[in-house]
Amino acid sequence: QTSFPPFILSIIVGEILRLNEDPTVHGVALHLSENAYSNKILNAVKPEKDVDGVSDVNLGRLVRGDTYNCSISPTASAVMELLEKLVKTVDGKKVLLVGTCGPLEASLQCLLQRKGAMTMSCQWKTQQLQSKVNIFLSMPIWPAHAFCTTSCHTPRVHRAAQTNHPQFLLYCLSLRWSSSVSALITPTPLGEGKSTVTIGLVQALTAHLNVNSFACLRQPSQGPTFGVKGGAAGGGYAQVIPMEEFNLHLTGDIHAITAANNLLAAAVDARILHESTQSDKALYNRLVPVVNGVREFSSIQLARLKRLGINKTDPGTLTADEISKFVRLDIDPSTITWQRVLDTNDRFLRKITIGQANTEKGFFRQAQFDIAVASEIMAILALTTSLADMKERLGKMVVANDKNGQPVTAEDLGVTGALAVLMKDAIKPTLMQTLEGTPVFVHAGPFANIAHGNSSVLADKIALKLVGEGGFVVTEAGFGADIGMEKFFNIKCRTSGLVPSVVVLVATVRALKMHGGGPNVTAGAPLKKEYTEENLQLVADGCCNLQKQIQIAQLFGVPVVVALNVFKTDSHAEVDLVCEIAKQSGAFDAVPCNHWSAGGRGAVELAQAVRKAASQENSFKYLYNLELPIIEKIRIIAQKVYGAEDIELSPVAQSQISRYSKQGFGNLPICMAKTHLSLSHQPERKGVPTGFILPISDVRASIGAGFIYPLVGTMSTMPGLPTRPCFYDIDLDPDTEQVKGLF
Amino acid sequence: QTSFPPFILSIIVGEILRLNEDPTVHGVALHLSENAYSNKILNAVKPEKDVDGVSDVNLGRLVRGDTYNCSISPTASAVMELLEKLVKTVDGKKVLLVGTCGPLEASLQCLLQRKGAMTMSCQWKTQQLQSKVNIFLSMPIWPAHAFCTTSCHTPRVHRAAQTNHPQFLLYCLSLRWSSSVSALITPTPLGEGKSTVTIGLVQALTAHLNVNSFACLRQPSQGPTFGVKGGAAGGGYAQVIPMEEFNLHLTGDIHAITAANNLLAAAVDARILHESTQSDKALYNRLVPVVNGVREFSSIQLARLKRLGINKTDPGTLTADEISKFVRLDIDPSTITWQRVLDTNDRFLRKITIGQANTEKGFFRQAQFDIAVASEIMAILALTTSLADMKERLGKMVVANDKNGQPVTAEDLGVTGALAVLMKDAIKPTLMQTLEGTPVFVHAGPFANIAHGNSSVLADKIALKLVGEGGFVVTEAGFGADIGMEKFFNIKCRTSGLVPSVVVLVATVRALKMHGGGPNVTAGAPLKKEYTEENLQLVADGCCNLQKQIQIAQLFGVPVVVALNVFKTDSHAEVDLVCEIAKQSGAFDAVPCNHWSAGGRGAVELAQAVRKAASQENSFKYLYNLELPIIEKIRIIAQKVYGAEDIELSPVAQSQISRYSKQGFGNLPICMAKTHLSLSHQPERKGVPTGFILPISDVRASIGAGFIYPLVGTMSTMPGLPTRPCFYDIDLDPDTEQVKGLF
Repeated sequence: QTSFPPFILSIIVGEILRLNEDPTVHGVALHLSENAYSNKILNAVKPEKDVDGVSDVNLGRLVRGDTYNCSISPTASAVMELLEKLVKTVDGKKVLLVGTCGPLEASLQCLLQRKGAMTMSCQWKTQQLQSKVNIFLSMPIWPAHAFCTTSCHTPRVHRAAQTNHPQFLLYCLSLRWSSSVSALITPTPLGEGKSTVTIGLVQALTAHLNVNSFACLRQPSQGPTFGVKGGAAGGGYAQVIPMEEFNLHLTGDIHAITAANNLLAAAVDARILHESTQSDKALYNRLVPVVNGVREFSSIQLARLKRLGINKTDPGTLTADEISKFVRLDIDPSTITWQRVLDTNDRFLRKITIGQANTEKGFFRQAQFDIAVASEIMAILALTTSLADMKERLGKMVVANDKNGQPVTAEDLGVTGALAVLMKDAIKPTLMQTLEGTPVFVHAGPFANIAHGNSSVLADKIALKLVGEGGFVVTEAGFGADIGMEKFFNIKCRTSGLVPSVVVLVATVRALKMHGGGPNVTAGAPLKKEYTEENLQLVADGCCNLQKQIQIAQLFGVPVVVALNVFKTDSHAEVDLVCEIAKQSGAFDAVPCNHWSAGGRGAVELAQAVRKAASQENSFKYLYNLELPIIEKIRIIAQKVYGAEDIELSPVAQSQISRYSKQGFGNLPICMAKTHLSLSHQPERKGVPTGFILPISDVRASIGAGFIYPLVGTMSTMPGLPTRPCFYDIDLDPDTEQVKGLF
Repeated sequence: QTSFPPFILSIIVGEILRLNEDPTVHGVALHLSENAYSNKILNAVKPEKDVDGVSDVNLGRLVRGDTYNCSISPTASAVMELLEKLVKTVDGKKVLLVGTCGPLEASLQCLLQRKGAMTMSCQWKTQQLQSKVNIFLSMPIWPAHAFCTTSCHTPRVHRAAQTNHPQFLLYCLSLRWSSSVSALITPTPLGEGKSTVTIGLVQALTAHLNVNSFACLRQPSQGPTFGVKGGAAGGGYAQVIPMEEFNLHLTGDIHAITAANNLLAAAVDARILHESTQSDKALYNRLVPVVNGVREFSSIQLARLKRLGINKTDPGTLTADEISKFVRLDIDPSTITWQRVLDTNDRFLRKITIGQANTEKGFFRQAQFDIAVASEIMAILALTTSLADMKERLGKMVVANDKNGQPVTAEDLGVTGALAVLMKDAIKPTLMQTLEGTPVFVHAGPFANIAHGNSSVLADKIALKLVGEGGFVVTEAGFGADIGMEKFFNIKCRTSGLVPSVVVLVATVRALKMHGGGPNVTAGAPLKKEYTEENLQLVADGCCNLQKQIQIAQLFGVPVVVALNVFKTDSHAEVDLVCEIAKQSGAFDAVPCNHWSAGGRGAVELAQAVRKAASQENSFKYLYNLELPIIEKIRIIAQKVYGAEDIELSPVAQSQISRYSKQGFGNLPICMAKTHLSLSHQPERKGVPTGFILPISDVRASIGAGFIYPLVGTMSTMPGLPTRPCFYDIDLDPDTEQVKGLF
């Protein structure tokens, strides 16, 4: 434990004493991090200026227990209530608040939002705040770095930290995995609120149950944000703020991935062109030029020589044969698997022909752009455990085969270092907060079908250190339990070495009705009455899907808590029925949640259930051994998780499997690329499909990320813009800088 | 004038008094912003702890005059000397420095660099610094926002500000244009050091002549950084730091432009597809859907109805004809001028065919990717004067014509608001600093051939307010005076309403020799001996180009100071000859500069000349009236600036000119897209070519940016990767996070 340096304590006391005597100041509210609350400070406030009662009864609510090591106020809701009182009491008078303006500002936003429109942006300017509530913020934020004492990766404090985020204390505590993973039943195309449950749960844990907690979320792609789906910051009173930053560029991680991905793509085609149009000698002279009279290999080139078995360091001594081996990667253009990416829903780039300008001398070929989050570099970011590990993975990425069928990697192209440089900031998780001040890490966001779809290992690990013993980290797994959770266990847990204590399975009455035989649910179209009126039969029938998803989680030996995300159209009887069936089906507990409308308060029951489940014995096991043949691993997932009778491999899939096995990649885990809209490969088959044969059309590999991904049918890796995209409603007020229409 | 709030002064004093009594502290060096140096503080330091003599003789060097409103230390060099002393004196002992760690850290870097390798990175971690020089930084930085009182745009403080940038005081002073624009003679392909002169000049002004100054630079594209040219942070002791951030993502401005540009591109093609495959009724139902039982136009759609002359607000009342007009933009695919962009040198995207997937139903067409900085959105960012102005310009961008030949804009596609949202942070200039602590704004970086190539109007305006009366803002103009400077005057000055006091024309002996008939200069190849040995005849012959560029500047009525960027191979006689000829040719002054090897000290003479020139009468005038016909304006530039006999328009160019004139765009300024390697259109013609007819192959328009750009020959808008790209030398040390090989 640490406290503020003495001179800072004396500043605070000095300032309070000054304010005590200032007749224009009608009250002092303290909002400091817990370790600033010494008796010295508390005693300094004159009783008549003590508007928030910090020196007596409320102290317990404002100051957290001494094991709480993250100085983000856990009491945003308490402060909010105080502020509500303040604004009433001192309306029109000048109230001076001493303290960090991070969670305070958030609380004020919350307060003002409650008094005004729900859709109001959360990015209040200090000046705007002042004019609204007549409050003057006197104390600057202590800069984050001044109090950082950490031996683990320092989380990058988001840019907004300069004005509205709190400082952050890091300690390395004993690592204890008290995390829960938030997964989902098979969803409707509208989404069932996995993010809001995650946020509501940590809000309940921290602000209402006094348990340290952290949420780890993925950053959404700009494609859906401007396309069909909208953002992914949660919703209602369970949101990440500032929501606009979360849904836009944030710290530029996805842009960094785009830049790195496309540098590698450009290097592949340029290399083919240069090799095709130059002699060995010309290539060698250009690759190893004389600079200031000296001819030297770069370190990247020395490493390549070593891989080729050429133990020479003087460029003058290579034989013609060695030069040829050195200068030619001999990439077979028909085997290129490395695609370009953009973070835009641009359907016209799904299939393109590149290299048609005269300057490319006829070397055109067919290619495609994927959405940026589908890049293998994104999957690497989510799975990496350190800078050194990330660099190694980036170098191992396979972009094509050479004409002898051997894999060609990023390292062969000499671009590993540049990729690592482009990704050096992106590896640091971004700190944000919920509306109630709970800390949130936003990091990575791999595509959930062709990649593993989970938030980052690094964010989970740092968050675990921060919450300390008995604390909770809630990390989100993409899509249904058959997709996101299976990959979480079999891929992510293998990389991180961590095991969760609880699975929180999110369900909605709406989705269960769909599985029970309800009509189609389509984004954009109005919901049919089956979904807005009570229908216990549909719910009961649909619970087969919930039961199956519970069983999937149990395959891994982890207790399941079902979180029923309640919509206003759900009847009491429907809610009770789901919870009852869930418990009969083997869930440790099943509780309704109202975080959307009530914030953390609406998820307290869930938080209690999660805490209780986490104290259970945990008998975690993987679903398959890595040593099994690729086909076996695929079959185990298909049968045990999806309920398929068997699998059926296309000839392409078979030859790819034997190629990867030959190339030494047979021992990697499997990352199934399957629709999330059904347990089977057919999106229209709801409930618990049986008796189907899962067709594997192709098998690909992300060697850097470290998995083989079989394609079950066609997976679109580039969404399109609909006739009426989200951006029709998005606007910026040039005077207030307020963003409208993002959600 | 302001000073620190009393409680902060008392902190500082309190801390000094504590340190006076601390036996483990062997000395106190103060490094605070000027307004912290009250007598109260100065008297507090015990004489025996006063290691930097702050209380007496050195005070004058550490504390600047009271008109200096930017608290970035102007005395980085003085501090450096002190530190040099400190490190010697107290080696092995603990010296405590109180102060901001921004310029201090920079100074330490500088110091350590002088003692070690020049290539050492500038991003020192505080801990690394401590271990190196045994110094402990006790006082946190005061956060920027706490002392900001400004009514102008607040500059965005770069992310790195959290750890190593100084605070920043903003005042609105009377606006006085004491800026100089830094331009260039016709350069060699190696570049002649325009950025280093700009940086050296502000270092000299601020740190050595006690004159407030600011440099406004462009951010370089990642394309060249990883391709052929390398970064653009200056070089030697005239550099912007942190150099890595400058050359990489910085605050993501270029990524934001890429995202906005490509969202618009995707919207164009998706719209054509949707219109081609749907009936009026289907389109209308999708564009104006029933949501929760209500059917409403969005505000973007209401604006479109108004433009169409349909004064209705109820979607139910439109006639079939009105619906058809409303739902169909009728874009003619053959007229699309809006291209996709990437910030990567990817030559295979120069000409591509898009839309070849089955899902695009046969609507493939030829298209291209440009480098991101060639996007019109980048030109807009550089020319805009406010958020409202930027939004308006974004909406006005023309992407194609409809089938009646009328322009189709971003506003017609309903994407203006989304583009503004994507660009809302990018509009704020990024604050960085030179190695000697001079403030630098980095903002925008439009392509210098198809766009105007200058840094942003907003950065210039904010910087001018900051330097105050008598201060200097040095802003860079891309390429030679025939390109960058002409566009600076005729395009940028028209938008900003500002006029510079001085033109600084950068020349090198190397480039002049080339113009005098020296052999070819090629990037990557060793220089011929003509360039490394004295050759007065070549220099004298080449000065014709210098003379011509001086005359071009004089066309605008602004005095010219020639800055001869001295290389180590230049002889005294060569240097003297250039300066003499420059003065004979009408330059106000001509001085040699050694900022690369000596920092600001090496550009003091230049700074003095610039100050003197700025006090001259200025008789600024534009080169042409906007009301002239487009052809006339092109001819004036060709004849007066390039020295052409006349111009020759291709049939395409002629028809484009008459189309733009008809569409009402005839009164825009002209932005010539011409090679920068010759005054003519032929790169190989050095010196001062005469007797040529300038061929105009095509004429295009950037309506949002606000200029017409005639193409003189073919302009590549997408560079390629060479056989041995820069990235071969770029690497990241995973332990120290040090970037190697960026320059």
